[in-house]
Amino acid sequence: SRSIRLAVIPGDGIGQEVVAQGLKVLSAALPQDVKLETQSYDLGAQHWHATGETLPDADLESLKNHDAILLGAIGDPSVPSGVLERGLLLKLRFAFDHYVNLRPSKLFPNTPTPLAGRPDIDFVVVREGTEGPYVGNGGSMRTGTPAEVATEVSLNTAYGVERVVRDAYERAHARPRKKLTLVHKNNVLVHAGHLWKNIFDRVGQEYPEVTTDYLHVDAATIFFVTQPERFDVIVTDNLFGDILTDLAAAVTGGIGLAASGNINPSGAFPSMFEPVHGSAPDIAGTGKADPTATVLSVALLLSHLGYGDEAARIEAAVAEDLAGRDAAAPRTTDEIGDALAARVSG
Amino acid sequence: SRSIRLAVIPGDGIGQEVVAQGLKVLSAALPQDVKLETQSYDLGAQHWHATGETLPDADLESLKNHDAILLGAIGDPSVPSGVLERGLLLKLRFAFDHYVNLRPSKLFPNTPTPLAGRPDIDFVVVREGTEGPYVGNGGSMRTGTPAEVATEVSLNTAYGVERVVRDAYERAHARPRKKLTLVHKNNVLVHAGHLWKNIFDRVGQEYPEVTTDYLHVDAATIFFVTQPERFDVIVTDNLFGDILTDLAAAVTGGIGLAASGNINPSGAFPSMFEPVHGSAPDIAGTGKADPTATVLSVALLLSHLGYGDEAARIEAAVAEDLAGRDAAAPRTTDEIGDALAARVSG
Ligand SMILES: CC(C)[C@H](C(=O)O)[C@@H](O)C(=O)O
Ligand SMILES: CC(C)[C@H](C(=O)O)[C@@H](O)C(=O)O
Repeated sequence: SRSIRLAVIPGDGIGQEVVAQGLKVLSAALPQDVKLETQSYDLGAQHWHATGETLPDADLESLKNHDAILLGAIGDPSVPSGVLERGLLLKLRFAFDHYVNLRPSKLFPNTPTPLAGRPDIDFVVVREGTEGPYVGNGGSMRTGTPAEVATEVSLNTAYGVERVVRDAYERAHARPRKKLTLVHKNNVLVHAGHLWKNIFDRVGQEYPEVTTDYLHVDAATIFFVTQPERFDVIVTDNLFGDILTDLAAAVTGGIGLAASGNINPSGAFPSMFEPVHGSAPDIAGTGKADPTATVLSVALLLSHLGYGDEAARIEAAVAEDLAGRDAAAPRTTDEIGDALAARVSG
Repeated sequence: SRSIRLAVIPGDGIGQEVVAQGLKVLSAALPQDVKLETQSYDLGAQHWHATGETLPDADLESLKNHDAILLGAIGDPSVPSGVLERGLLLKLRFAFDHYVNLRPSKLFPNTPTPLAGRPDIDFVVVREGTEGPYVGNGGSMRTGTPAEVATEVSLNTAYGVERVVRDAYERAHARPRKKLTLVHKNNVLVHAGHLWKNIFDRVGQEYPEVTTDYLHVDAATIFFVTQPERFDVIVTDNLFGDILTDLAAAVTGGIGLAASGNINPSGAFPSMFEPVHGSAPDIAGTGKADPTATVLSVALLLSHLGYGDEAARIEAAVAEDLAGRDAAAPRTTDEIGDALAARVSG
């Protein structure tokens, strides 16, 4: 009989609430014969205040014994900026070599968008997850004085770029439109930019059916709002991907709907699934958080673990739920979770 | 009697055409007693092909003898990406210490925007222009091999950050809403981010009337499309400013309208004014280029040189022209320039 050993890191703020709904829908979606074993990890702001630790070694070790991780949200105003992000969230992405940070963007019918004319949006960003300006390679000298110098180093390797570019070509090839766009800034960041572009072009020769193009990151933001329908799959650097996927979320109904997967395609380490949104401490505990992004992240999780039909059922349930939403009659976090679970099991 | 010694770098593609209209409107706007002396510099793709040079030392020296520079656009597909950008455009910004890259964004009535609901947009981005990931500090080893490593270093100094932050506070203080937003990514780029944030907070104590806030760059892109009216003055790093100002242009009528000034507030070197758009080789010579961004850049130039009334007249002419535009009856580059010049002199 099959089983899923799932690690759950609810985290801070609305993390708890949305993760609870994600688990509810996951249970509803799983076939009877699949045993779901969850283990919760109490990490985040509270744990840091109590212990000074962001991610104890023992937890990191223990997390390896799971098939996947579901994460809610990390971050609290009471913790200095960067401490939990670097010490917990990014630490997991790097330790578990999550080099594919997968972020699909789709504008569902009846979903609000700030864009006039409601363009047809259905693309996926393959954001590199283990390199670039996120490596934490930097420092400062004469800190706090008028002579301070601070650096941030973007590290990029052929090894790291090629594997994520290949993954993006595979994904593009598997989609009907078979189009892949590289986004970088190779007219300014010439060294990293040329590395990306050369590998993108070389690997592309192995995928003659995939149409390719290149955009500078600044120009890409323009197309995200004027012509988002032009995109199918986008592959990009860690920082550009961070920026672009928040913008992508904004034009497809907001970060309340944006799902993501931090994927280690080799399976050497568990992949981690999380909503793109943060911990939103301002609405924590009010029942206003939309759990849909977490539920869609659960769909990505299922799809990654080979439960494609169940993932599709969740996506369909979300699409139906969104189609029926009435902005004048908002529901609580729990009510949305219940509705989605009901659709999935029904 | 007064005079303006203006250097003109038309550059590539549509650069020639739009600069011609900019000069036309400039002449129309200037008071009779102001003598305009222009000197044109033949730099860009053609010059590079002919000589292998992007910016000869003699030109760099000679450019110093001007009160300001008007630049059209740089870049051509026949030149490898980065050569002209780094060797000419960025070289000028760095050599002339253009640390304030000023980019106003305003949604004029009757101007198309991809945003539903036509929000009230009127903000200005103060983009740092001489530091950050733009310094050209990086390299690659084992280039072109599977073992390649490529780096890009973002350099940030208290000296460089403080001067641009001060400039931004001054600008915010001079505006009715007196609001300044710092955009960075200090939860990931902690060293550079903390430098920016600390200086932003410290200098802010000298401006108690200015309301401040901080946004991560990814979150800022969301607000650019969902709530752009919240912004008044934004101060940010060179690369974040590059990305955000293209997005800002997109939501306020497109890059055909986005003006910019590369400003050296000390006056030690000439400041440089240029449209945010590129050389658009696809429409060069067709008369389809909109010269408005260049004309608005001329207004920034005049304002910088102390001709505030003339700058305001140009801005008013543009606003009137835009109000009367009919998308069904497009005009040529030259016709728009003529119309603007007529309004300015009339
Ligand atoms: C919280 C932060 C470290 C993170 C990132 O920058 O990757 C977030 O913005 C995201 O997109 O997942
Ligand atoms: C052409 C390029 C070097 C430039 C930049 O990145 O600054 C442009 O995008 C801009 O915004 O002026």
